[in-house]
Amino acid sequence: MKRITILGPGLLGGSIALKLRQIGGCHVAMWARREQAVAEAVAAGCADLATSDLGAAVKDADLVVLCVPVGAMGDLARRVALSIRQGAIVTDVGSVKARVMEELGNVFRSAGKFVGSHPMAGSEQTGLKAARADLFDRTTCIVTRNGHTDPSAFGEVSDFWQRLGCRVVEMTASEHDDCVALVSHLPHLLAAALINTVQAANPHGFDIVGPGFRDSSRVASGPPEMWTEILMENSGAVIHAIDALIAKLGDFRQMLPRPGDGREVQNFLAAAKGVRDRVKFPKSNNG
Amino acid sequence: MKRITILGPGLLGGSIALKLRQIGGCHVAMWARREQAVAEAVAAGCADLATSDLGAAVKDADLVVLCVPVGAMGDLARRVALSIRQGAIVTDVGSVKARVMEELGNVFRSAGKFVGSHPMAGSEQTGLKAARADLFDRTTCIVTRNGHTDPSAFGEVSDFWQRLGCRVVEMTASEHDDCVALVSHLPHLLAAALINTVQAANPHGFDIVGPGFRDSSRVASGPPEMWTEILMENSGAVIHAIDALIAKLGDFRQMLPRPGDGREVQNFLAAAKGVRDRVKFPKSNNG
Repeated sequence: MKRITILGPGLLGGSIALKLRQIGGCHVAMWARREQAVAEAVAAGCADLATSDLGAAVKDADLVVLCVPVGAMGDLARRVALSIRQGAIVTDVGSVKARVMEELGNVFRSAGKFVGSHPMAGSEQTGLKAARADLFDRTTCIVTRNGHTDPSAFGEVSDFWQRLGCRVVEMTASEHDDCVALVSHLPHLLAAALINTVQAANPHGFDIVGPGFRDSSRVASGPPEMWTEILMENSGAVIHAIDALIAKLGDFRQMLPRPGDGREVQNFLAAAKGVRDRVKFPKSNNG
Repeated sequence: MKRITILGPGLLGGSIALKLRQIGGCHVAMWARREQAVAEAVAAGCADLATSDLGAAVKDADLVVLCVPVGAMGDLARRVALSIRQGAIVTDVGSVKARVMEELGNVFRSAGKFVGSHPMAGSEQTGLKAARADLFDRTTCIVTRNGHTDPSAFGEVSDFWQRLGCRVVEMTASEHDDCVALVSHLPHLLAAALINTVQAANPHGFDIVGPGFRDSSRVASGPPEMWTEILMENSGAVIHAIDALIAKLGDFRQMLPRPGDGREVQNFLAAAKGVRDRVKFPKSNNG
């Protein structure tokens, strides 16, 4: 794919653009809604063309990547569909996939070829200033398709993420949404709930926090607007995840005051350690 | 203090010894229960004297630092009290302070001067192999005293932690135990519960984890035996903390499916971000 257009110069869009420029061999266009963001994209050197003119940004693109919040995806997609060439491939980076796959799949049924994507990369930081060419190194990108998805477009989008440094995993949209409810949305909510619990119960606790608390709570510093959209968009799966976690906490709570040798407590902790120690985490310093 | 004896060459004991050797100007003795651990301490160069002979290790010490698990503290202290010189200062690094302050305070009422300590440093890793001279840089150490504590010993122990690189915060034992239940024990339990929840609900989630999940769950890889002791020792405060967190999660769960603009959800997340962004975390890469 020779001509790639990124829509939205945020952390993800900016990092994709920087990496593509580093790899070379393609024309990178960046669209931003605000003129100031266009100027910043130019200054960051992350695109061959930066513009607030959506039609100009997408009309010659082989691949368009929507890097805007989930809530803005539908409207932007409908505008993109008016200007892209026949056969152009479109993907996104949205954190929730069921509605995006349905909505954008319909929008691009005739005017392009849509494939869903969700790179599991990022940080609590936001915006082009936090963008890095190596953001995707050794991270996982989930790509989603349904019965309408063009197979060659699916292959092209998978290749695209691999070139950016990702390991690619295919999932259905609903499988994706279940999994991210558990490993992304729930941890985000837990971090926020942990902070709010300490604040309500004993804010002196914040005076003595160590590296464990810093890391456990890091994602709570992410952008509240973006996460509100994500959590509400995936509310069904998130509620299931919350209920499952509350049940586990309840189990643990019952074990704790029992007299004895603490075997149940230790089994609970050892099971978690055993599972976590086998998980393959991204090795880089992303996030 | 010229002669400092560390009891237990684990992550904390080893890191204290390495830092003291780096600072210089004092004699560092290391006691270990097992001969192999003595040999490892010698090989690591973390002490002027390494021995499994407890009496020999402590008899000339100006300061003895108990760096063993909370559950082993009482028995070791009673043995130490038999061999230390009059006026020797004793402290510990235990993660729970109420019982340690009472038990070790009594043990050392006549035979020494006890001050409680808890450096908020560490890692999910364990043992001398993970020890680092800079482990305490810019971390917080809580020092605790009660009505029996010798004021000059309290000052000496506070100075000791400051020399190691810590910011020192004074708390009562019960204040300490309340705070660490919220900012250390609860996050540990949450990390374990998160892992166990994903494992039970959908282990495929582990295939796509990103840096957020890695950091949110990191402490769950800590040693289960040590954490079982800590959580059971502080069970009253931990149960309060669990209940407070479950209540917050319950609040959030009610907000999520409500139609509307998500203002409640956003307020919840924004409150957490606002609080967290003002917290002063240790700046180093500890942990």
